[in-house]
Amino acid sequence: MGLSVFDHPFLSGLFGDPEIAGHFAVEAELAAMAQFEAELALVQAECSIIPDDAARAVAEHCKGFAFDIDALRAGTGRDGVVVPDFVRQLRAGLEDAHKPYLHFGATSQDVIDTALVLRLKPVLDVFDARIRGVIALLDGLEARFGQNSLMGRTRMQDALPITIADRIADWRAPLVRHLDRLAEIRPRVLVLQFGGAVGTLEKLGADGHRVAQALAKRLGLAAPEKAWHSQRDSIAELTAWLALVCGSLGKIGQDIALMAQNGIGDIGLSGGGGSSAMPHKVNPVGAETLVSLARFSGVLAGGGFQALVHEQERSGAAWTLEWMIVPQIMLTGGAALKTAETLLGGVQSMGQQ
Amino acid sequence: MGLSVFDHPFLSGLFGDPEIAGHFAVEAELAAMAQFEAELALVQAECSIIPDDAARAVAEHCKGFAFDIDALRAGTGRDGVVVPDFVRQLRAGLEDAHKPYLHFGATSQDVIDTALVLRLKPVLDVFDARIRGVIALLDGLEARFGQNSLMGRTRMQDALPITIADRIADWRAPLVRHLDRLAEIRPRVLVLQFGGAVGTLEKLGADGHRVAQALAKRLGLAAPEKAWHSQRDSIAELTAWLALVCGSLGKIGQDIALMAQNGIGDIGLSGGGGSSAMPHKVNPVGAETLVSLARFSGVLAGGGFQALVHEQERSGAAWTLEWMIVPQIMLTGGAALKTAETLLGGVQSMGQQ
Amino acid sequence: MGLSVFDHPFLSGLFGDPEIAGHFAVEAELAAMAQFEAELALVQAECSIIPDDAARAVAEHCKGFAFDIDALRAGTGRDGVVVPDFVRQLRAGLEDAHKPYLHFGATSQDVIDTALVLRLKPVLDVFDARIRGVIALLDGLEARFGQNSLMGRTRMQDALPITIADRIADWRAPLVRHLDRLAEIRPRVLVLQFGGAVGTLEKLGADGHRVAQALAKRLGLAAPEKAWHSQRDSIAELTAWLALVCGSLGKIGQDIALMAQNGIGDIGLSGGGGSSAMPHKVNPVGAETLVSLARFSGVLAGGGFQALVHEQERSGAAWTLEWMIVPQIMLTGGAALKTAETLLGGVQSMGQQ
Amino acid sequence: MGLSVFDHPFLSGLFGDPEIAGHFAVEAELAAMAQFEAELALVQAECSIIPDDAARAVAEHCKGFAFDIDALRAGTGRDGVVVPDFVRQLRAGLEDAHKPYLHFGATSQDVIDTALVLRLKPVLDVFDARIRGVIALLDGLEARFGQNSLMGRTRMQDALPITIADRIADWRAPLVRHLDRLAEIRPRVLVLQFGGAVGTLEKLGADGHRVAQALAKRLGLAAPEKAWHSQRDSIAELTAWLALVCGSLGKIGQDIALMAQNGIGDIGLSGGGGSSAMPHKVNPVGAETLVSLARFSGVLAGGGFQALVHEQERSGAAWTLEWMIVPQIMLTGGAALKTAETLLGGVQSMGQQ
Repeated sequence: MGLSVFDHPFLSGLFGDPEIAGHFAVEAELAAMAQFEAELALVQAECSIIPDDAARAVAEHCKGFAFDIDALRAGTGRDGVVVPDFVRQLRAGLEDAHKPYLHFGATSQDVIDTALVLRLKPVLDVFDARIRGVIALLDGLEARFGQNSLMGRTRMQDALPITIADRIADWRAPLVRHLDRLAEIRPRVLVLQFGGAVGTLEKLGADGHRVAQALAKRLGLAAPEKAWHSQRDSIAELTAWLALVCGSLGKIGQDIALMAQNGIGDIGLSGGGGSSAMPHKVNPVGAETLVSLARFSGVLAGGGFQALVHEQERSGAAWTLEWMIVPQIMLTGGAALKTAETLLGGVQSMGQQ
Repeated sequence: MGLSVFDHPFLSGLFGDPEIAGHFAVEAELAAMAQFEAELALVQAECSIIPDDAARAVAEHCKGFAFDIDALRAGTGRDGVVVPDFVRQLRAGLEDAHKPYLHFGATSQDVIDTALVLRLKPVLDVFDARIRGVIALLDGLEARFGQNSLMGRTRMQDALPITIADRIADWRAPLVRHLDRLAEIRPRVLVLQFGGAVGTLEKLGADGHRVAQALAKRLGLAAPEKAWHSQRDSIAELTAWLALVCGSLGKIGQDIALMAQNGIGDIGLSGGGGSSAMPHKVNPVGAETLVSLARFSGVLAGGGFQALVHEQERSGAAWTLEWMIVPQIMLTGGAALKTAETLLGGVQSMGQQ
Repeated sequence: MGLSVFDHPFLSGLFGDPEIAGHFAVEAELAAMAQFEAELALVQAECSIIPDDAARAVAEHCKGFAFDIDALRAGTGRDGVVVPDFVRQLRAGLEDAHKPYLHFGATSQDVIDTALVLRLKPVLDVFDARIRGVIALLDGLEARFGQNSLMGRTRMQDALPITIADRIADWRAPLVRHLDRLAEIRPRVLVLQFGGAVGTLEKLGADGHRVAQALAKRLGLAAPEKAWHSQRDSIAELTAWLALVCGSLGKIGQDIALMAQNGIGDIGLSGGGGSSAMPHKVNPVGAETLVSLARFSGVLAGGGFQALVHEQERSGAAWTLEWMIVPQIMLTGGAALKTAETLLGGVQSMGQQ
Repeated sequence: MGLSVFDHPFLSGLFGDPEIAGHFAVEAELAAMAQFEAELALVQAECSIIPDDAARAVAEHCKGFAFDIDALRAGTGRDGVVVPDFVRQLRAGLEDAHKPYLHFGATSQDVIDTALVLRLKPVLDVFDARIRGVIALLDGLEARFGQNSLMGRTRMQDALPITIADRIADWRAPLVRHLDRLAEIRPRVLVLQFGGAVGTLEKLGADGHRVAQALAKRLGLAAPEKAWHSQRDSIAELTAWLALVCGSLGKIGQDIALMAQNGIGDIGLSGGGGSSAMPHKVNPVGAETLVSLARFSGVLAGGGFQALVHEQERSGAAWTLEWMIVPQIMLTGGAALKTAETLLGGVQSMGQQ
């Protein structure tokens, strides 16, 4: 296990982000899926669609249910999606009378997409807080070194002197805009997915809309006008936003790597990386890492756009492509913000007095 | 000339979009650049930075100036950017006393980026209007065929019947959101670029901010807090938005191509493409074109993220990469919207009564 | 016209490559298409499939035929592909008795793909020659400056001294391998496309294979085992090869831009770019351009892979995506090689003696 | 752990490939790294560069050494690369007199890149065998169903009838070429990396070349002319090859998904995926998965080209980007081949008799 740099046994020392990773761990995923089923049952009871006792039994049963992961894996291999076996396992422990009321009127995408969104909610909070943290670090650097002089460089040649405050202003302004963008994106992406087999809640008839509204409220999500499971624009928008964030941090990293060059000396960093061959070196590892993460995020987000061509009422192919991209780009963004915090927190000098 | 499908001598019959292309023609580009220089001079005279008569002379001279394109091309080859020769040509026709007051305090990026933004303004209006047009067409199709039945399909297999209105709702909702997104992006991207050599307006001293405010107002753009020439997030955000738009239209195209299959027959189209080998065929060319444009826009927008790593006060490499991407993705978006209008306008039947 | 940087009225001064562009001009494209039709008729006469006089008439007629481009454009807009109108125009000038023997048994993809390959042949020769030219320039630089000292740098920090010869060796070795790769790719890509409507040459019956063999020979192409029009791997392989070439040149460009930094001074360049704001600057424009072209080529080639999912006997969507990518990446490669030649040809000093 | 679909606790049921994954597990990675150190010491003793007993001690010590993964992770976070701590751990258990002879003259990239190549060797063998396996399955399908009729379709419309053999020929030919390509790529990529700090083997002086030759031989790799650690073309070529392979399999998947549509019925599949909402459905999950993997591989390989701009003697940023791409694309290729085997192995009927 641990194929990606974000959860690789040792590369995660450089790229890992336990806070974000926790939300993409299987335990969190299954818990969010079970939460969907529990709340769905409770709401359907409230709406007099299923019996109260069945709903209570389902909700209780879902809480902390210990899934058989091996069986889930086998089921996913068989069905292409985990939900049939997930539902089978949950149902197996329910009284026969209650069984039909679990997952009633729902489909795979309702569970999986809603469980994704439920976890994105705290993840977006982390991103928001971390961007603010990076901005605060930049403010601090400006306060300490803002008046220092720096050779302004265009096309990698000396141009005219600027101040450190000028350089920092160019680093900070995009981050402030990213906060604005996140606030705009949030209500579009934190939306309940609930549509049943083909997005029409056909099993719930006239009650569909009411159930969706109440379920969204219970889950702390916005209610959709209609199930969005074949409308993936807000997911792709969010992955594009992460590429914007990582790109802006990549510019900071690239600038710092250039500032840290021997013979340039525009920045002093603590805690650079060591070399196995040259103990004297101090490598600006964090700065370079930001560049790598920027490039990788752009690659992933570019792939995210390909998932928009989501045919008919549900595309297995396009949806599956998202699974390959979304968790990773979240970790990419997390790693970039964390790396920026560490890198900027370790700046010891900037520019010339 | 005409390498891209958007201006290729015959492929432009399929992909061309004269309305958008006009804004990216060299005449429009040079006119916007000259407009920047003219308005800059007038504002600087208002602010008592340059003499009134010089400003009037510059402004008059810039109006409709006939540039020597061959010389501009040679200059671009020499300097990596057109502005030195552009300024040289303009100055050559001015009285010596007025020459220094052309392009005063400005740099290449001020001219080029502002000229881009000046043209993006009407382009975004076109996109807005066209998206509304596509939505209106969808509304019309819903009114005509919404109650008809359609087999809902998931994972490319028959699932359960839905209505045409259900399918159309999934096509329309992302487009409505794209309008919201555009409204959010517009004030971030339609911003004057004005910073001088290294973004600090060093030649204008204390007057810099005042000049920038007045110039932005005259040009109908927002005034920047600081020159944004090394902050490319809003450009990348706009290119990502176009990939979202094209992706949503690509889903419509993919769906229509699937609906139009022989043996499925869920849609009747007028004006499909003919075949050189099989005169009996009616190809859903517009539908397929939407898929191609969606994929291409995603590729280009993915590349747009790579341009965010814009080192120091100006990166020749990253800026140049944008030049390869931005005009093309605008045309991609224009072509997709135009194709969608034609395709949807030619729908003759949908679903089964 | 001139939307792309490669044929833009003034940006082409920096990115233009008339030699490669000539092969992608509409005149060359139509000439290659007409050559296909002419040779096809002659071969079919040789094989006693069509009358000799018809074949001679067709071949004569195709030679230097002046197409009505406006009509081709309108036809492409209508049919999604130029070939129906192309054939219509050619037929219009033939005697009625000869008309059926033009384009006999062929389809759009036969004409267009073969016309592409016919032009790729000289283009690949240009690439081969230019790579050899760049290698020769590197050999020359090694002869002049190879013994000079250079600080070896890893992770953008001083490591240990190396020689200019060491650095040049890392620049050259990939180019040598690219020549090997090109030799391997050439026979896979320079293959006649000839399949008729669905790739089976159904109109030619038992003669199909013989005609294909003879036609390939006449056109100087390899004969396919079977029409490859839904097998796009060799096209994608070629575009990937261009991204490899451009990437290797981008590494040279990035290194030179770093070497040319003020305060580093590891290289002396003639003819850098001028600045509109700072006449004292000499910008390493060619070096930066190589980086931009490397990144753009990677973006385009990444998109090329998406065109491999080419459904059924011919995908309009996937084929069209190639049209957006292939000509541009050829020009990207051409521009990169040309820029490298100029840049390396202008090196005046490297390293320290 | 298990962020990627390839090692995710339950998604790996669909995408997992234990055979390939085993080579990218940390145990295999560390074993290959230790193998490099062991063989390096033995070769250096053979060449009389280090004492025999030291070499034997080092080699013995490296065999099956149990690394402290937590310490490796912490070290990677500190140094940006695992090798300093890897070497520290190995050295800690050696006699003081032997310590200097571990990792003598080598650098991080020598260990990591060679350890990558050592594992790619068996991985490429697996790919070769699996492609042959898929070809054999296609041959088998041709033998069983090749004479059956199928409507040939172009632009997703009925064109003319073909046979199943025709369709299969288009699926198979690219795979045969992929085998040829692999044979060409193999000697370029299976090359020892050994260069010391800056690629010049400066610590070994005149012995460098001899050691490299002998070490390559011992490791079963080709010997490089020069260390390739800043020349990444062969890695990028390999990742591009995987995108070609996955793209060709994606075409098969897309075709099968279209053939399996209700109302088309051109293929019968066993073992499709079940639905949580609609028990009657049989989803062509494997076919769709092939499309997803094709698109993802294209995205990753596109990113691989961005890693070619590898500045100076070693780029932390570009090298790190490879770490994000290479293992994943190997698993993508593995998953695609495995999925193709299962999908084709489950075909029960094709076309009409």
